[in-house]
Amino acid sequence: MENFKVNNPTTLHFGKDVISSLGKVVSNYGKKALLVYGKGSIRSNGIYDQVMAQMQQTGIRVVEYSGIKSNPLIEDVDAAAALGRKEKVDMILAVGGGSVIDSAKIISITIPVAHSGWDFYTGEAKPETAIPLVSVLTLAATGTEMNPFAVVQNEAEKKKLGYGHKLIYPLHSFLDPTYTITVNAGYTAFGIADLMAHSLELWFGEGEAPLTDRFILSIMQEALEAGPLLMNDLNNYDLRARIMFAATMALNGMTAYGKARGDWGVHAFGHVLSLMYDVPHGASLTIVYPAWMRVLLPRIRKRLEMLFLGLFGDPDPNKGIDKLESFFHSLGCPVRLAEFSVGEQSRDDILDVMRENQSNGAVYPLNEQEMERMVEAFFSLKS
Amino acid sequence: MENFKVNNPTTLHFGKDVISSLGKVVSNYGKKALLVYGKGSIRSNGIYDQVMAQMQQTGIRVVEYSGIKSNPLIEDVDAAAALGRKEKVDMILAVGGGSVIDSAKIISITIPVAHSGWDFYTGEAKPETAIPLVSVLTLAATGTEMNPFAVVQNEAEKKKLGYGHKLIYPLHSFLDPTYTITVNAGYTAFGIADLMAHSLELWFGEGEAPLTDRFILSIMQEALEAGPLLMNDLNNYDLRARIMFAATMALNGMTAYGKARGDWGVHAFGHVLSLMYDVPHGASLTIVYPAWMRVLLPRIRKRLEMLFLGLFGDPDPNKGIDKLESFFHSLGCPVRLAEFSVGEQSRDDILDVMRENQSNGAVYPLNEQEMERMVEAFFSLKS
Repeated sequence: MENFKVNNPTTLHFGKDVISSLGKVVSNYGKKALLVYGKGSIRSNGIYDQVMAQMQQTGIRVVEYSGIKSNPLIEDVDAAAALGRKEKVDMILAVGGGSVIDSAKIISITIPVAHSGWDFYTGEAKPETAIPLVSVLTLAATGTEMNPFAVVQNEAEKKKLGYGHKLIYPLHSFLDPTYTITVNAGYTAFGIADLMAHSLELWFGEGEAPLTDRFILSIMQEALEAGPLLMNDLNNYDLRARIMFAATMALNGMTAYGKARGDWGVHAFGHVLSLMYDVPHGASLTIVYPAWMRVLLPRIRKRLEMLFLGLFGDPDPNKGIDKLESFFHSLGCPVRLAEFSVGEQSRDDILDVMRENQSNGAVYPLNEQEMERMVEAFFSLKS
Repeated sequence: MENFKVNNPTTLHFGKDVISSLGKVVSNYGKKALLVYGKGSIRSNGIYDQVMAQMQQTGIRVVEYSGIKSNPLIEDVDAAAALGRKEKVDMILAVGGGSVIDSAKIISITIPVAHSGWDFYTGEAKPETAIPLVSVLTLAATGTEMNPFAVVQNEAEKKKLGYGHKLIYPLHSFLDPTYTITVNAGYTAFGIADLMAHSLELWFGEGEAPLTDRFILSIMQEALEAGPLLMNDLNNYDLRARIMFAATMALNGMTAYGKARGDWGVHAFGHVLSLMYDVPHGASLTIVYPAWMRVLLPRIRKRLEMLFLGLFGDPDPNKGIDKLESFFHSLGCPVRLAEFSVGEQSRDDILDVMRENQSNGAVYPLNEQEMERMVEAFFSLKS
């Protein structure tokens, strides 16, 4: 086992009606909040009203920044930070899914400095303080509610990158599975795919930590069991709760205890597809993972065998990859780029952007030939 | 799933040589520390010298209180608190196993008040502040290094009770598996038994949380695999690390996510045996669990079947209890009171103390007849 440190400052409030303590919690940080949200679904499903009622009850003034995209843009981060700076907000309240909370994390460290939020990604700026951040999660997927990571896209530079810093943990996150019941089938499925992918990035991490491996398998087994049940019963609170809980556990640090690092190559490749064709994050992962596994099979055979023994009771890696692909497809996730109307003629473009972004894995980096074969597999019926 | 809250303030430093940052961490809390430890094994194995070197490097003055017993006494807690109060210490540094750290937790809330530490157990006193507590763990067993619980014994009142409060989390805990290498076979085995028992108390908890159940099974599977390997190779760092990590995870809160509460009846019964016959805590649990399961079998059949399917691949509850008992015995743990030279004539005495202490489970309380049958089973060759 590798040395590791555990220190997660996020307080998680999980369950039905946890929002009833939101006002009290937020009021610990001041009197004026920057409310950050997306394209307005929280207005139609009633979550906005519940949040505002909590703010009113505790006398907190609210400045709003809405319109965060599902692949969040640095322009929105910078505009929201400018607003928050001008309005001298005491804290940020992020209400939404991964893109909203990730944006809010970067906003929280951008407000105190005279920089674009992108400068944290390039290394030009380093955060010194953060405006306190409280999140209300409305989509079970990325795990951002309990971790120090944020992914943002820069369209001008054609880059979608991840950033991590201990200052950007949400101080509190409110997770009411009820709030995810209005999420449609597509995004529900992408969320399940995302939590599977996070588990896999650490499964293919560096360093032997058998108990952590068991935790990772547990999370994936839970997704394999509860995921299909949920897809057939989208209004079921208990199934929503099981997936929401699993998504948080899949990237709150515990899958990394005793490991040196995850691989994260598949996420980097997926970010390229999101950037180029606006493929939803979860969907990009279900396209990349089967292709990545097929190409890397000779190098990761042992890990694949352990994985598929744990997930399907059969270590055969070829059958296992097929089963995983079928699982993703059965949820309604795409497993080939053709499902996003992207044709084979785009292969070279994709490879160019991957090379430019230096997208690759930390533990199992692909060589040029492997990368070409992987991109080929994004289109082929079967590799 | 039940609603739950996650908020664990302990920073865990896990791995080889993590003590190298102890001085720096402790110096954040002041200049004078109360060092609490046990009967002196840390002096013979060199840990004391390493801790003192860290304190000297960072200019921290140390006041010592040693002699904490393995079943820790409230008299020691009160004497140490009086010393800490008189010496106006800024923080407490607990170096040892569960008994030392548990004692230090109660010392940390006793120093600021004019009470005996026992008053927290009876409810006569409520803590308002705590002296900052940093722990260095030398025994993998109780999980106290990352939780808000403390068990202390009151010999005058013939009681051994548990107490929990969010103020008594250690702020930092240093876990170097190297420090457990000198632990003898007996206490190594008791530690493995203890982490199994903690897992089981939550397994028999209230509330359905399937992913949490998978985590609990993962911890027990890890103990079943790594435990026997370690007993045959006590100097093996990686095996020490696996058991130390598992013991922390078994009682740091994660096995309770989504559950209303654990049962904790077996622990309460075990405390009675420790109190009456100075049976080590881990040993008391391996005596009580098989008996408890056999007596409760008709009521907990379904949970036993799920458990043994996960642990042994066979749901049969009778065979499963036998296998668990054999596992405990194979580690070198006692499974009958006779192994502590306690004869059957003590049955009524034990029952009297159990009734007086109101020892029982929260989820599956035993009725009078069940309790009698359980105590009988502490002695019988087979129930």
